[in-house]
Amino acid sequence: MVDWDPPSRDYEFLFNEVFDAVGSIEGLGFDDFDWDFLSMLMEGWGTHVKEVWLPINEIGDRKGLRFEDGKISMPEEFKDAYKRGVEEGWFATSSKPEHGGMGAPTLFQAVTWAEFGTSTCMSLSVLPALTTGVYEVLAEHGVSELVDYYAGNLATGEWAGTMCLTEPHAGTDLGIISTRADPNEDGTYRISGTKIFITYGEHDMTDNIVHLVLAKVPGGPEGTKGISLFLVPKYLPKQWGDGSLSEITHDLSDSVNGVSCSGSEEKMGLHASPTCVMNFDESVGWLVGPLHEGMPLMFEMMNRERLATGMMGLGLGEIAYQNALNWSKDRRQGRDLKGARSPNEAADNILVHPDVRRMLLESKVNNEGCRALAAWTGILLDQMRSDDPDVSEPAEGLVAMFTPIVKAHFTDLGCETASTCMQVMGGAGYCSEYGVEQFYRDVRISKIWEGTNGIQALDLAGRKVTQGFGRNLRYLMWPLTDFIEENRDDEEMAEFNRPLHQGARGLQQITLLMVGEGMADPHFLAAGATDYCRYFGNVLLAYMWARIAKICLKRKGEPFYDAKLASARFFFNRIFPETLGLAAKIQSGPGPMMEYPEAMF
Amino acid sequence: MVDWDPPSRDYEFLFNEVFDAVGSIEGLGFDDFDWDFLSMLMEGWGTHVKEVWLPINEIGDRKGLRFEDGKISMPEEFKDAYKRGVEEGWFATSSKPEHGGMGAPTLFQAVTWAEFGTSTCMSLSVLPALTTGVYEVLAEHGVSELVDYYAGNLATGEWAGTMCLTEPHAGTDLGIISTRADPNEDGTYRISGTKIFITYGEHDMTDNIVHLVLAKVPGGPEGTKGISLFLVPKYLPKQWGDGSLSEITHDLSDSVNGVSCSGSEEKMGLHASPTCVMNFDESVGWLVGPLHEGMPLMFEMMNRERLATGMMGLGLGEIAYQNALNWSKDRRQGRDLKGARSPNEAADNILVHPDVRRMLLESKVNNEGCRALAAWTGILLDQMRSDDPDVSEPAEGLVAMFTPIVKAHFTDLGCETASTCMQVMGGAGYCSEYGVEQFYRDVRISKIWEGTNGIQALDLAGRKVTQGFGRNLRYLMWPLTDFIEENRDDEEMAEFNRPLHQGARGLQQITLLMVGEGMADPHFLAAGATDYCRYFGNVLLAYMWARIAKICLKRKGEPFYDAKLASARFFFNRIFPETLGLAAKIQSGPGPMMEYPEAMF
Repeated sequence: MVDWDPPSRDYEFLFNEVFDAVGSIEGLGFDDFDWDFLSMLMEGWGTHVKEVWLPINEIGDRKGLRFEDGKISMPEEFKDAYKRGVEEGWFATSSKPEHGGMGAPTLFQAVTWAEFGTSTCMSLSVLPALTTGVYEVLAEHGVSELVDYYAGNLATGEWAGTMCLTEPHAGTDLGIISTRADPNEDGTYRISGTKIFITYGEHDMTDNIVHLVLAKVPGGPEGTKGISLFLVPKYLPKQWGDGSLSEITHDLSDSVNGVSCSGSEEKMGLHASPTCVMNFDESVGWLVGPLHEGMPLMFEMMNRERLATGMMGLGLGEIAYQNALNWSKDRRQGRDLKGARSPNEAADNILVHPDVRRMLLESKVNNEGCRALAAWTGILLDQMRSDDPDVSEPAEGLVAMFTPIVKAHFTDLGCETASTCMQVMGGAGYCSEYGVEQFYRDVRISKIWEGTNGIQALDLAGRKVTQGFGRNLRYLMWPLTDFIEENRDDEEMAEFNRPLHQGARGLQQITLLMVGEGMADPHFLAAGATDYCRYFGNVLLAYMWARIAKICLKRKGEPFYDAKLASARFFFNRIFPETLGLAAKIQSGPGPMMEYPEAMF
Repeated sequence: MVDWDPPSRDYEFLFNEVFDAVGSIEGLGFDDFDWDFLSMLMEGWGTHVKEVWLPINEIGDRKGLRFEDGKISMPEEFKDAYKRGVEEGWFATSSKPEHGGMGAPTLFQAVTWAEFGTSTCMSLSVLPALTTGVYEVLAEHGVSELVDYYAGNLATGEWAGTMCLTEPHAGTDLGIISTRADPNEDGTYRISGTKIFITYGEHDMTDNIVHLVLAKVPGGPEGTKGISLFLVPKYLPKQWGDGSLSEITHDLSDSVNGVSCSGSEEKMGLHASPTCVMNFDESVGWLVGPLHEGMPLMFEMMNRERLATGMMGLGLGEIAYQNALNWSKDRRQGRDLKGARSPNEAADNILVHPDVRRMLLESKVNNEGCRALAAWTGILLDQMRSDDPDVSEPAEGLVAMFTPIVKAHFTDLGCETASTCMQVMGGAGYCSEYGVEQFYRDVRISKIWEGTNGIQALDLAGRKVTQGFGRNLRYLMWPLTDFIEENRDDEEMAEFNRPLHQGARGLQQITLLMVGEGMADPHFLAAGATDYCRYFGNVLLAYMWARIAKICLKRKGEPFYDAKLASARFFFNRIFPETLGLAAKIQSGPGPMMEYPEAMF
């Protein structure tokens, strides 16, 4: 019953008209990259996931995975689909050509790839997304011997990768992990400990699984400063023995490297994405990056995964919207309050009802606003690599600041959109047959993964905004203020520009309040963080919609542009006003929660 | 892993101090009813569901029901629990003594019974709740022969009842149903048609199932005006033959009365609550109430079920909160930003974090506010029956107006609370082992059942508020305005009374706007209805919290009352401000949704 089409027209608009994706990354080493190539990538990937991924999404939910004797078996359909993706090179678009990758800009992989993949099969998409993250950390920070051996198979997806952070007693608080790494004489380490919530920690989709494991080498500093990052393969090379990886083939040992899976969580959704308890028992591992400096590396990967998780909110929001829309076009109930629109039918379709339109437009407009911000973020990810500091520094600052917002705001909205779209469908929305309930369950994890949204908000308010004395915020406020100024006297823009101006001013005021009060009382900042993050997200989406409106005002009369203008109006009238309440809540400070008597909870 | 305790202390406070439950219903025919009796009922029911229902809730979710050859088998644990409830009289508290009931006031059954039942096993609770609804309609409107035969077994729960409204093409829009009822010569009817989404339409919990079916008798008026209500049993009496029910025993025929179940929906949650496709094939049925006047009767039952559905939002919100709270007391991650609170432990418990407290207090404070409004509504349900029009008329008006708010606002909040509580628990919240994910799935149907929340909002804004030239609203505004006036000069009350005053004034202004603009453009009213309903819900909860604060200010220094005061502060500072954004959205009118070009959705 579920259907989906890639939102290609929207990407064409965003990458060509709102942002000049190709022009923005000129000279950054993507020489053969042009619009035709990007367009071809988007079309090819859209076709691939519609044909190969979408049909297996519900199968994965229903069949799930099988855990037996420490082994996890994935549905055959998943293995076939994954294999085809590896063969066709779809997991290697942003990997370096020297590792067998396509060398295309990150903006495709981080944005369009991620959205289409999560829309059509979220539980499968996380496997190549994680592997790409492992590949990138390794390619950037691994010693050459390690890179030479592992990077190629990770780049293409022939081998899979994982992130092993959480332990039973240590999730958000990684400083208290107890997994240890003891040095061997040959330069490798013996890793021992238990990790939980390890996505795709064990499965039969690939011949080998390469874990990036956080562990402490005895004698190091306390807390997070004593954490190092290790590469720990499920299977060591067959010929391996003396600690060196040079000139060793990819043939693998028959016995596992002390790595075992002792269970897989039963979850509300993502039934075909294993969530494993992983045990490392004197497993051989290689240090990645400097000793005791594992946290910054893991955060590098984590930040990419945070953006990817944000895209899950958008991806699931998009497919939920498309299916609710299809339903509402066919479903006939009641009459337009202003008179029957289809008098020959027993009832009008439910699109005539203002409240149904409200639900559909909330979903659509939030999806499209998020997609615009994602497109911008994708371009910035490539610009970060520029040799020109005038390009790379603002890009880096903005990505740092946008990351928690994309992660938290997109996933909050994705969960809300899945719920709203279920509501459009009434009872059918709650029944498995119609698919939307799976999206509702699947997308919910995205608010938790890679640091809960509360943690994202603290990262934004307590770190990203104040970093470098507010440098990141200035990189946003400069172009935003310019835009507002440029449009100050444009009457047609007033309906968009005025609320944007108010929102931007409000953001500055609240930021000053949070930072100022936060210096005296850190609880003030923490108490307002979640509302602040949502306020900030709204201002960014307002900026996107105002920029979109500016473009569309020049092409009035063309249906696509008229619809975008109407969407921008919906945003400013029906979504953006929530900032009023958020500001008031933040201003009330930490008293309302901290003064509640603890014993009386 | 899941635990729950009845919130008895809160009910004691509400029924004794905030409202005088016993005094309010004095002289209404509940002569033996006093505080001891109500207290005993609450304690007994709390103990029963904690011991009998709570342990089977997760079993029901996991095992679900079995559909085979038109029969639905329920888990054995459910059959045992239900049987025990019938034996102990727990489903007959509000039924009339002449039918074997306890004759206790509705306020217990509609409020406390409903909350405790849905908290501990929502999928079981709907069976007696529906049966009570069927019993009440029958006892009120059935001819004596029908009442004599059916009311007793329905009153006690020995037989079960259902509501059969929805058809595949007709859900919200019942005017287009096609189930027909042809008159027999003996005064009965032959009912034929298909109904979907019939909760507990078929099961093996009781010997007989009594369906209330909406159908059209040929030759009647078009639309909802031609709908009649029929009682259709699964099994007819064994001796039955000549159309009369007098002096016939409860022995049942071996063959079904043309009633069959052709399927049960697979749903996201409520796995142990059958959702059936029911077919009636020339089934013998009895008219209940006057011919062609089935809709008002069905609405009578529907309105009780709407309140019951609202209570599901509270019930699931409460158990989600209790479990998230237990988790947060045990879970240690990070440190209080102002310095370690448990320096001897590796980390502080997460209750020290302002954002965790925000989540817990949002949940707790919304639960308690809803419980207060529910308690008031419960008392009004009994007062509706008073012979004194000065009592019954305001009660009826307020219940009419509160019903859509309790249904929509409580269930919206219940879904939000389940999500917030899952978020408190991080990854554990998403795993089945910890139970909260079941609450998240189960509670979601409550926004859809008995008229989606969008329909509730339209009922409120388009009907209940304007009914009798605004009579219902005046019944609220009089005491509310008095309360605000009384406290105008009370300095201690200012922090509660001022925002309440603003909210009440805002509600009046928005109501005038909605009604005024709605006369010229019905889309205006429909476009703002959902936000209006939420605004209204917030004002009612604000009124509850201000009344609670008034009481608690007099008992400062006692922990329970201090905590309530802190909760009231949290409400006004951290929840109520959302009304600011809602008002702005409503004021923007229908343009943002209705002007969106339909072809471009």
